[in-house]
Amino acid sequence: MSPPDGLFPSRSSPSARLTSVISHFSSPPYKVVVCRNLGPDVMPLLENRHEFELVVWPEDRACDRTWLLENIAGATGVIVMLTDKVDTELLDKAGPSLRVVSTMSVGHEHIDLKAAAQRALKVGYTPDVLTDAGKSALHPCSSTLMNFCAVADLSVMLALMAGRNGGIGAALVQNGEWSNFSWAPFGFCGPQLSTTATSPTRKIGFLGFGRIAQATLARLVPFGITHCLYSSGPSSPPNLQRDAELEKKYNLKAVAKVDLDELARESDVLFVLAPGGSGTYHVVNEGLLKKMKKTSIIVNASRGTLVDSDALAKALKEGWIWGAGLDVVEGEPNVTRDHPLVKEPRCVIVPHIASATLETRKSMATRAAHNLIAAIFGENMPAEVDLSAFYRMVNDGPHRP
Amino acid sequence: MSPPDGLFPSRSSPSARLTSVISHFSSPPYKVVVCRNLGPDVMPLLENRHEFELVVWPEDRACDRTWLLENIAGATGVIVMLTDKVDTELLDKAGPSLRVVSTMSVGHEHIDLKAAAQRALKVGYTPDVLTDAGKSALHPCSSTLMNFCAVADLSVMLALMAGRNGGIGAALVQNGEWSNFSWAPFGFCGPQLSTTATSPTRKIGFLGFGRIAQATLARLVPFGITHCLYSSGPSSPPNLQRDAELEKKYNLKAVAKVDLDELARESDVLFVLAPGGSGTYHVVNEGLLKKMKKTSIIVNASRGTLVDSDALAKALKEGWIWGAGLDVVEGEPNVTRDHPLVKEPRCVIVPHIASATLETRKSMATRAAHNLIAAIFGENMPAEVDLSAFYRMVNDGPHRP
Repeated sequence: MSPPDGLFPSRSSPSARLTSVISHFSSPPYKVVVCRNLGPDVMPLLENRHEFELVVWPEDRACDRTWLLENIAGATGVIVMLTDKVDTELLDKAGPSLRVVSTMSVGHEHIDLKAAAQRALKVGYTPDVLTDAGKSALHPCSSTLMNFCAVADLSVMLALMAGRNGGIGAALVQNGEWSNFSWAPFGFCGPQLSTTATSPTRKIGFLGFGRIAQATLARLVPFGITHCLYSSGPSSPPNLQRDAELEKKYNLKAVAKVDLDELARESDVLFVLAPGGSGTYHVVNEGLLKKMKKTSIIVNASRGTLVDSDALAKALKEGWIWGAGLDVVEGEPNVTRDHPLVKEPRCVIVPHIASATLETRKSMATRAAHNLIAAIFGENMPAEVDLSAFYRMVNDGPHRP
Repeated sequence: MSPPDGLFPSRSSPSARLTSVISHFSSPPYKVVVCRNLGPDVMPLLENRHEFELVVWPEDRACDRTWLLENIAGATGVIVMLTDKVDTELLDKAGPSLRVVSTMSVGHEHIDLKAAAQRALKVGYTPDVLTDAGKSALHPCSSTLMNFCAVADLSVMLALMAGRNGGIGAALVQNGEWSNFSWAPFGFCGPQLSTTATSPTRKIGFLGFGRIAQATLARLVPFGITHCLYSSGPSSPPNLQRDAELEKKYNLKAVAKVDLDELARESDVLFVLAPGGSGTYHVVNEGLLKKMKKTSIIVNASRGTLVDSDALAKALKEGWIWGAGLDVVEGEPNVTRDHPLVKEPRCVIVPHIASATLETRKSMATRAAHNLIAAIFGENMPAEVDLSAFYRMVNDGPHRP
């Protein structure tokens, strides 16, 4: 969204500028700084633009602040990661040539949006990418967002690993201890995700029932699950029509919004897939965990703050629940070997990799490159952060420049 | 199956014996030896039989041979595990009182069936247990066998772990190294199991297409897979009608039997789910692995002998394929830290736990107890090993007693 006319110093249109620059300079007219190599599939999108003078951070780690401050001067565009802070210092160093900040991330909390608005910059980001793959009716991602599929896949993996000793088993073999392990009738056994003749009911609970949760539900249907229960914020009323449709589509005995007590009591696997923030802080706590079944599993692929780590460690240690599969932990990545959850053998933790698939990240990198290119050439950006609120703040507030 | 009349010394019917024994002895008439504690859910089935004098191996490891030889004398029945060799020495020690050997296992290669037939013993085992849970039409286990579901669940887990760095990620956190790991655009990325807009085709291959493979296929449908290819033995012709039905049921672009070359070339994930034996020995070898895609995954949840470990390690080291998830390894459990596959970071190995679920093993233990009880009281055993071939050998062969 462009700033209202007259708020900021006018700029000539990008195409006009491009023409004039090309006619006056033999070197490429646009300096573009890229804070991370985007890989062999995506870098050519930038390299093949002869109008660009590309400056790429050469190492395979987060870009050094000093390097970025040195190199940003005179840049027209910059591609940043979540790890690169875009503040007034950086924007001042860039100077008036800067036209676009394109971040390869869904979030943009590392970017001072007000400062960007004050400088009439465009800000691009990479929200979940719409797919157009219209395939199987059973495939919930066919008309929805693709990051969700990566996270739903990982949620299923964590549920299976937590129940079936995936972490313990792999670590045992990795440590060369397989030959010390003698078969036992119940050795390495865990609760089965699929229903069985003697255990024909499987209730899956969701704390938060957005698109990731629904994509996860779809993946669990062929495991024979029978009930889907969910809890969501007080501002989210039960959607009876959608629930009835899901119940019918998946031939389940129930799809129903329930209170937290019932969710804890009934869930065989409880997926925590709600947004972070103060409203969900430590929603998984001692009280909730004590109500769960001894054979139940908890999976968290949302934000670490939703789960009280000490309470979960206690629940695992004392056998209130069976196991846990976590993609996120409060205070990550400062999770050391003596973290109470790392010490629990029935707790499988992976380092926040739910969206880490080649397909998803390549799409995000591609989107970040396209955002930058579009902004520089004055075209519509595929995904632009809406800065209108900041334009109003700039316009109305006490700090109007 | 009972031996033909007249082949062996006649025995009075169990119910008649029971009556006479009870009337003559104040102590329980049937000594029953149990080589492994079957857990709090199953042991009461035996403990509550006042006709039994129960002798249970007290430790949580495989039963000592010397203990078993000492305690088997005078037993009417014995419950054994795969780890307990049942040979002529043991049967002779048991003496003529022995009526039934009940093993808690699907296989019975640890039992000398000919020796059992010579003694007119009953042999019980625990083949896959039929379920009667008629639920979701999408649930392939509702009218089939339950061990299959445990193995299919684990196959999905291994496919996800191999693709999404499940083993590497969990080990990194376990070793307290999360905080050393800085985010990178393609850090911890792997191929996504679910289809995406930019990668809308996913071909799943099966080496062997029996019930476990079909249960695995069903679980993968909501991930958006598009093609199911399989290879099976030359004696197994393509089942065109079934394939057309599966294609329609799951809305796939193809379900087709193909040759090994095409299977290797096309599969994004290749599940090895065929029987062991000489016919499938090292079917996954250098030649096959070289034909696979660089982003492909191999899962083996059948027998270690189907995969050439050295070839697979080379394929992973040199990047012919992306990753592997193994429940079985040739020569297991002698798989040390310097095993070529253990040294490959993209190889996830779990210690042969595909059927290790509480539900499955409890059913097996229950079945083993019921087999023993039925044989002792002259009732039909729920699952009896067919010894008729051995009766014929005994009858016709040179060693007829």
